Amino acid sequence: MSEVRHFLHLRDWSDAELHGLLDLAARLKTEGHRSREAAGKVLGLLFFNPSLRTKVSFETAAAHLGAASSLISPGQGSWSLETGDGVVMDGNKTEHVKEAIQVLSRYVDTLGVRAFEADDAELARMASYAAVPLINLESATEHPCQGLADWLTLRELFGPKPAGKTFVLSWAPHPVRLPVAVPNTALEVASRSGMDVRVVCPPEYVPDAPRLEAAAAACARHGSRFDLVHDQATGFEGAHVVYAKSWGAPALAAEPEREQALRWETYRNWTVSPELMARTDQAAFMHCLPVRRNVVVADAVLDSPAAVHIRQAENRMHVQKALLMQLWHLS
Amino acid sequence: MSEVRHFLHLRDWSDAELHGLLDLAARLKTEGHRSREAAGKVLGLLFFNPSLRTKVSFETAAAHLGAASSLISPGQGSWSLETGDGVVMDGNKTEHVKEAIQVLSRYVDTLGVRAFEADDAELARMASYAAVPLINLESATEHPCQGLADWLTLRELFGPKPAGKTFVLSWAPHPVRLPVAVPNTALEVASRSGMDVRVVCPPEYVPDAPRLEAAAAACARHGSRFDLVHDQATGFEGAHVVYAKSWGAPALAAEPEREQALRWETYRNWTVSPELMARTDQAAFMHCLPVRRNVVVADAVLDSPAAVHIRQAENRMHVQKALLMQLWHLS
Amino acid sequence: MSEVRHFLHLRDWSDAELHGLLDLAARLKTEGHRSREAAGKVLGLLFFNPSLRTKVSFETAAAHLGAASSLISPGQGSWSLETGDGVVMDGNKTEHVKEAIQVLSRYVDTLGVRAFEADDAELARMASYAAVPLINLESATEHPCQGLADWLTLRELFGPKPAGKTFVLSWAPHPVRLPVAVPNTALEVASRSGMDVRVVCPPEYVPDAPRLEAAAAACARHGSRFDLVHDQATGFEGAHVVYAKSWGAPALAAEPEREQALRWETYRNWTVSPELMARTDQAAFMHCLPVRRNVVVADAVLDSPAAVHIRQAENRMHVQKALLMQLWHLS
Repeated sequence: MSEVRHFLHLRDWSDAELHGLLDLAARLKTEGHRSREAAGKVLGLLFFNPSLRTKVSFETAAAHLGAASSLISPGQGSWSLETGDGVVMDGNKTEHVKEAIQVLSRYVDTLGVRAFEADDAELARMASYAAVPLINLESATEHPCQGLADWLTLRELFGPKPAGKTFVLSWAPHPVRLPVAVPNTALEVASRSGMDVRVVCPPEYVPDAPRLEAAAAACARHGSRFDLVHDQATGFEGAHVVYAKSWGAPALAAEPEREQALRWETYRNWTVSPELMARTDQAAFMHCLPVRRNVVVADAVLDSPAAVHIRQAENRMHVQKALLMQLWHLS
Repeated sequence: MSEVRHFLHLRDWSDAELHGLLDLAARLKTEGHRSREAAGKVLGLLFFNPSLRTKVSFETAAAHLGAASSLISPGQGSWSLETGDGVVMDGNKTEHVKEAIQVLSRYVDTLGVRAFEADDAELARMASYAAVPLINLESATEHPCQGLADWLTLRELFGPKPAGKTFVLSWAPHPVRLPVAVPNTALEVASRSGMDVRVVCPPEYVPDAPRLEAAAAACARHGSRFDLVHDQATGFEGAHVVYAKSWGAPALAAEPEREQALRWETYRNWTVSPELMARTDQAAFMHCLPVRRNVVVADAVLDSPAAVHIRQAENRMHVQKALLMQLWHLS
Repeated sequence: MSEVRHFLHLRDWSDAELHGLLDLAARLKTEGHRSREAAGKVLGLLFFNPSLRTKVSFETAAAHLGAASSLISPGQGSWSLETGDGVVMDGNKTEHVKEAIQVLSRYVDTLGVRAFEADDAELARMASYAAVPLINLESATEHPCQGLADWLTLRELFGPKPAGKTFVLSWAPHPVRLPVAVPNTALEVASRSGMDVRVVCPPEYVPDAPRLEAAAAACARHGSRFDLVHDQATGFEGAHVVYAKSWGAPALAAEPEREQALRWETYRNWTVSPELMARTDQAAFMHCLPVRRNVVVADAVLDSPAAVHIRQAENRMHVQKALLMQLWHLS
């Protein structure tokens, strides 16, 4: 099984490989590509967590290639799955993910897995059970399909060489403590794309050091700037893209009440507003969706021509179609 | 987006257009049509409420054309959706229908939406977000796909000119207050079909005046009769079709307890029985399903040769296949 | 409708017919068969209970033939279904299975039904409503698709004539009282395959007499042995296959607490262990899945090369593809 190439993390794929994927995606999008190249193939989609875009964009991408999809939702019509190694399964979990993934990979030609709670080690373990390519549909640490879609969107906005353009990742308030997969991935994409990158967040919400360091290093390779700013108004100055996203404070995992108070009270006014957008250089507004209107971003921003969130979502389908073609050696 | 033609209400489609659809559906049914004409297309189905016939008949219709389907169930594996305009989304709804429909219409070629709580304004708003044709899979006010299937069934029973045949819409008891979409639509179909129409219901259950007036006007155009009868035995006299359906009393929205007592106690004996059917002119028995046996209708009626409810359900698939062909310009 | 051939019980199909199906399945497996032979056909899958393998293996089998699938899950996005005959439906069940199956069989080309609570009479009643072949996806008494997969696995291990090879059906502990469909079916398959059959279980867990008698009779026809053993260590001696499975004590239906104590305390040590496997003649370990690790079987057995549970699961797809081809007259 060791020769299967999975799509777990963007970092496993070189810039050249990812640009190749994006070139293909751009071509498929322009063509309005529909074919039967993958007729008879089946894409499995294992969702431990809810999905709208991921499910429908993958099903559509597969259908445009002539392939079928098969959905598995543990606990909702499918068996609840245990993930622990060596566990005595005397509780309420009916099946082990080790069996589930081995079995599914005997049926399907590629298996997507969404598991918000799976860290890198858990995701690697799942991949080790798979005899077919496994696609990360968002783990605890990364959302690489969203990253591809965002990167395609940035290329559409600024071309393949966006030097001198500033990408702002702006933290946002939210009633629920959200995971860091999307901000992690957005940081990686923006820094690897060659843009100047500015992380704008309250001091308690600074991303984990290794992620920051990797982003800073990627910016350095491109000769672009990397900044961390805690004042939102200053942070928006001259931006060409504002990517809004809420996430929980990494350092406050053990203090959930304090974190909640910071996220939902102290910094409640970090909602992206027209006034903040007016400080940018006519920035595009990005969000991965789902987005809470008038919490993360004001209606007036999301309903303005600056917002490209629907385009980002559309691009999910094109990049994933390119990814399936690559994994299935159709391109 | 304004040039997209949706399928929201039967009233938006002329008699000639609907008869054209039914002609096509009848031909597809006779042929046992299966083709690959829509290969590569994807039908999205967004269900805010449960479904058996609608889901499977649309999936089958699409498959018979070579198209794929993709299901979205907010709150069941997909994000819960907010529908209010301008809402601060700080509650338990994760995504706004404005984003959901815009995004879905970037993926799929047609989007069906079932939303029992959506009134005409809400449905129009949803359609305004869609870049592809939106099909009403039953809103608060109408169930146009059921209407097409019913109309095809009536044409099969009586031919395209059913003048002189009497269609009885008979109110029925039910433990739950049901919406008026199906009776509204059945009234419109029967009156536009050219039949004599008789609404048989308790005085508190008279349909809304605009619906009655529209039906009476359609009957007048055809030179056929339109009657409102409150005595069930009298109402069944000489009928050629009995269409049974329960619905809540429109005028008693503010008095749910009284409405419940009327619907489930006072008029509990409005179950369609063999004795009532014996008063008709060998009437066909129709129901849109799901039906509660021995509450809405007695086993002895539903299991008799007079019952055409299974044929109505089958016709859902044929008319919807015709509709997809029309919306996709395949016919 | 009486001429439709269903797939409800293995006993309805002769040895020659089943070997024909298995021959076809083996050929499809070798070929890695994918075709468009069933393009335009639709397989309906009605699940009253959860599923992973059954759902995905059938969807994949259909897709490999070019057919589509449509899933129906009563109570989860579809209406809850009543099964009783003559019931006044004034409770919480919205639709009768009589309508549901009649309607579905107007849409789909074959209908699979999983209903863990349906006994043979109930299953026959469901089949009587169907105008298309109905496939039992596991009823209260039998799991014939699993049986086919197990038989194919046995043929792969021992060839078509496994005379002199010993099949051990080993009862296992479990926190939940499980149904007898799988042990019933495994007994039938092993005895009809021509193997020596040994049922190894605590005295309270002896399968129902008619099942035992049928298995003993099949063994007698083949001139093979049939034994019932209550000591697990003795029972494993010289085995060539150990098929582990938990089931509830048939005779203790009226004493659930005593049954629970026996199953989960008294006989808790019936977990299949490496020590027990060491007493066999290098037996293959079989299980239908889902399996509770370190309850039914130790990790060290399930993760050893002796375990063929993943192969059994894969074979589900191949035998079901062969079955669909047979039912659709494609083979």
